[in-house]
Order: sequence, then structure tokens, then C-alpha cells
Amino acid sequence: MGAKPRFQRVVIAGLGLLGGSLALALKDRKLAAKVVAWGRNAPRLKQAKAAGLVDEASTDVACAKGADLIVLCTPFEQFEGQLTQLAKAAPAGCLVTEVGSVKGPSVERWHKAAGPLRFVASHPMAGGDKTGWKHASPYLFEGAACFLTPLRLSDRRAVLAIGELWQALGMRVSLCSPEEHDRIVGRVSHLPHAAAFALAASQSRLKGLDDFAYAGKGWFDTSRVGGSDADLWADIFLHHPSRMDKSLAGLQAEIKALRGLLKQKRKGPLKAWLAKASGFRRATAQERA
Amino acid sequence: MGAKPRFQRVVIAGLGLLGGSLALALKDRKLAAKVVAWGRNAPRLKQAKAAGLVDEASTDVACAKGADLIVLCTPFEQFEGQLTQLAKAAPAGCLVTEVGSVKGPSVERWHKAAGPLRFVASHPMAGGDKTGWKHASPYLFEGAACFLTPLRLSDRRAVLAIGELWQALGMRVSLCSPEEHDRIVGRVSHLPHAAAFALAASQSRLKGLDDFAYAGKGWFDTSRVGGSDADLWADIFLHHPSRMDKSLAGLQAEIKALRGLLKQKRKGPLKAWLAKASGFRRATAQERA
Repeated sequence: MGAKPRFQRVVIAGLGLLGGSLALALKDRKLAAKVVAWGRNAPRLKQAKAAGLVDEASTDVACAKGADLIVLCTPFEQFEGQLTQLAKAAPAGCLVTEVGSVKGPSVERWHKAAGPLRFVASHPMAGGDKTGWKHASPYLFEGAACFLTPLRLSDRRAVLAIGELWQALGMRVSLCSPEEHDRIVGRVSHLPHAAAFALAASQSRLKGLDDFAYAGKGWFDTSRVGGSDADLWADIFLHHPSRMDKSLAGLQAEIKALRGLLKQKRKGPLKAWLAKASGFRRATAQERA
Repeated sequence: MGAKPRFQRVVIAGLGLLGGSLALALKDRKLAAKVVAWGRNAPRLKQAKAAGLVDEASTDVACAKGADLIVLCTPFEQFEGQLTQLAKAAPAGCLVTEVGSVKGPSVERWHKAAGPLRFVASHPMAGGDKTGWKHASPYLFEGAACFLTPLRLSDRRAVLAIGELWQALGMRVSLCSPEEHDRIVGRVSHLPHAAAFALAASQSRLKGLDDFAYAGKGWFDTSRVGGSDADLWADIFLHHPSRMDKSLAGLQAEIKALRGLLKQKRKGPLKAWLAKASGFRRATAQERA
């Protein structure tokens, strides 16, 4: 006789890799009695339901009636409109969170749009270059970091409840301001994505795709997130274009520095530059451990 | 009652990640009756022998007496000197290969230095950012690509034997000229390494190492090979500085293009640039499959 699940009716908006993994994780850990998918693509929703990923699936926002938790796993550009709809369909006080990669000033707009629902912004730092619920895993969130970026006006108990939700899925939860979130994530996620896209872009200009039959970790690791969704990442990069530009200028300067060192053809200074970089990379792995 | 191992006495010069993994793989697949480590660091050699990695370990080139296979797993800058020593110590006709990341004109010099030994240049594309035999694995080579870059003067049977050796360790073996090898490897390995080093270098200039407690695949995958050995990679990058410079110029141009797109703040063109990059990245994964 298991305990009563923490949530009775969880609505997940958007069944991609994250939404699908969340559905599996909630079931796997018996955190939700019923998991409902709300989406736009009726055939895909039907398929996910048939595959047993969710208990119900609907294109109608009315599926949020009776929900006690809603998680937006759609592209963040859709949050405001969806929250406006949900504010009318879901019970007042219903917990709502989202998994968007950007926060900053958007959080305040999302709060407003959520009206009587108890909104808490969060960012589980899980995912990958593969998209779609067919790649979903109940363990996607385990061991990864998750940010909560509450505002002063956020309901304290709601913040706690959402924090506990991600913790229950195995995440390391941290609280910070939306601006601090964007600074950190810009650095540890957005710039590496931009670098991976640029590397892939530069290769795409050359002939000989079959050269990559010989590729190993050097190519596949470094470029992995450069295979991510173009639509989503266009929105992410345009959310803070000036911050992004500054990071990219820093990266460009280092490539220029490396080219200068190669022109000098002196091993000492080149090795020192490489050692500084590799030392930093290794130190970051310690931070994670 | 197993069959007689293919090799009776294999000498591995340099017990790093590759040398150590080769020792384990040869034992694991019963390809060698005796595996001998030849190195410079006596305490480390002793430790490796005590750990059961090799049957014998020595700092004296005389350990190559009676060898039927020698594999150089040292930094490639040492190959010429080591081959000159081995040419006097090992039996004439003994098979010799190496695992260097660069070929080009060096192969001819190595051939000459090997004298009466039967030298075949090879490049198993396995490894990682972790170094040292303590990270060695008998499965490091499995499924990875391996190049052989024989010259016209190479002994045909030796080329075949070395090819079969890597195949026996699970590798996909391809033959090409030293120049074609360097073109392909420059593209699928050296440029990604340079990009990863540059990304790490740009981050090392900023404060807040603890930001990386929140990092996920975006950072750790993209920068992984940027944690590689500085000494080795200085030599690799300086082997073909002009080719490297050309690749880096291409990468720099794409970063500049991305910055231009961000300044325009128009989603359409940015998304098209990202889609081209991610489409190419995904296509390369198909090449490997």
C-alpha cells in the first residue's frame, strides 16, 4: 500500500525530451497519480498516450481543470500566452513552473500572466542534443543542477514545493535571482552551445562529409550540442544578445591569440596557453564533483 | 588449451592512456604471450608492473631483444630518437608501429630511423582527455577508427599484420597517404581540440569558477578535449601550423558571422545559420553509424 502521490493531476505542456522525461520521472517515482499532456499536435499526443507516456493527452487547455501542478516544457517564447490561457482554466492556487533556459525580465511577465496560479520559475539544467519524447528518460534529471529564480512576490510555500519536486527527481536545487541565473547559464551553457554551433558551421562549409567516419571524441563531444534545436536556440541567443556578444568576443579573442601563437612557432608560449586552458577545464570538473 | 598468441614479445614504449590500454587489450584478447613496457620513469614502470598491467618493465632499450612487435605510444616528438635506439636493439624484421596523431613528412623520417625493423605508421583514433595508464581500458580501441599510412617502401606483409592487429582490438582500419591522414585528422580532431581549448581559455579569464557547479553537457561535452595534455597538443598544433591557421580562420569567421546575426536581432537569418550547423552536426553522426 504505497503512500498517496504528492500530486493528483499534473499537466505537462509540451511533450519534448524534457516534458516526456518529466512524465516518465513522475510516474517512476510515484509522484503523480495522473499525468496529462497538453499540446498542439494531436497525432503526436495520441501516439505518446498510446505509448503509455501519459495517462491523458489533450489539445484543449480545459485539461488543466483540477490540476494541482502544471509544468511548461514548451519553448519559452510560448510561456506568456500559455500562462494566460491556463490562468483561466486551472484552479486558483495551482502550482505552475516552467523549464525555460532564460529568465531575466521575462520572469515578471510570466508571473503576471499566471494570475491567480502560484507561479515559480525554474530551470532544470538537463537535456541534450536529441529532441522529442522518444528519447525521454526517467533519469534525465538525476544528478543535474536546477535553478529556481523566485521573485519577491512569489509564494514561499510554492517555491518550496517546486524545489522539492526537482529534488525528488534527483536534482541539486539552487536559488538565485533571474539576472544571476542568466549570467551563470550564459557562461556555462549558452557560450558552449554557441561555440559548438560555430564549429559545426565552419565544418559545414567544407566538402567531404565522409571524413567524419573517422571522427572520435574530439569531434563528437566538442560539437555535440551544436546539433541542438535551431528554433529554440535562436530564441535563447536573442534573449540577451549583448551578453552573448560579449562572451563571443572573448572566445574570438582566444582563437586570435592561438593563431598568433601558431604564427610565432614557439612551443613554450603555445604550451603555456594550452596549459592554462586545460587546467581551467580540469578545475571545472572538480567543481561538479 | 588456447591457440598460440599472435605475438610472443610485445614492447610498448610509453605507458600512458594509450600504451596502458594497449597492454590490457593485448592481454584481454590473448594476442601477446608477453607484454613489456619500455619507459623512462622507473618508479612508474615498477608500479605498472606491480599492478599487473605488463609482464616486464624496463628503462633499458635492451628489453626489445627478442621482440616481434614494438608499439610506440610516447609523444611523437620522441619517435625518431627511440626508433634509432630500437633499430640496434630489436631483431631485424621486427614489426614496429606507433600511435602518433600526425603523419605527413615525419613518416619518412621514422621509416629511415627504424632501419632494418619493419616500420608501419598507424593512428588509432582513440583516447580522451584523461591521461596515464591508471585510466587505461582494454576496450579503449573498440569501434574507433584507425589509420595506417604506409609509404611505397613499406613492407606489404608488415602493413597487413599491423592492420590486423588493430582490427583484432576492434578498430575500423583504413589506409591512406600521410597527407590525406593529416587533412582528415586536422579537420575531425585537431580543429575541435583547438576550439575546446579556446573555449576553456576564454572562460579561464573570468572570475567565478564555482559557476561551473551548475554546468551540464553544454560545458562538459564542448570543452572536454580542452582538458587534454598541453605538451602533446603544442606539438600537434605546431606540426602543421599553416593548415591549423586556415581551420581556425574558418572558425573565427563563423563566430564573427554569429555576432553579426545577433546584432541584427532578426530571428529568421539566425535560425537559418543555426539550422545549417545543427543539420551538419547531425549528418556527421550518421557517417559514424
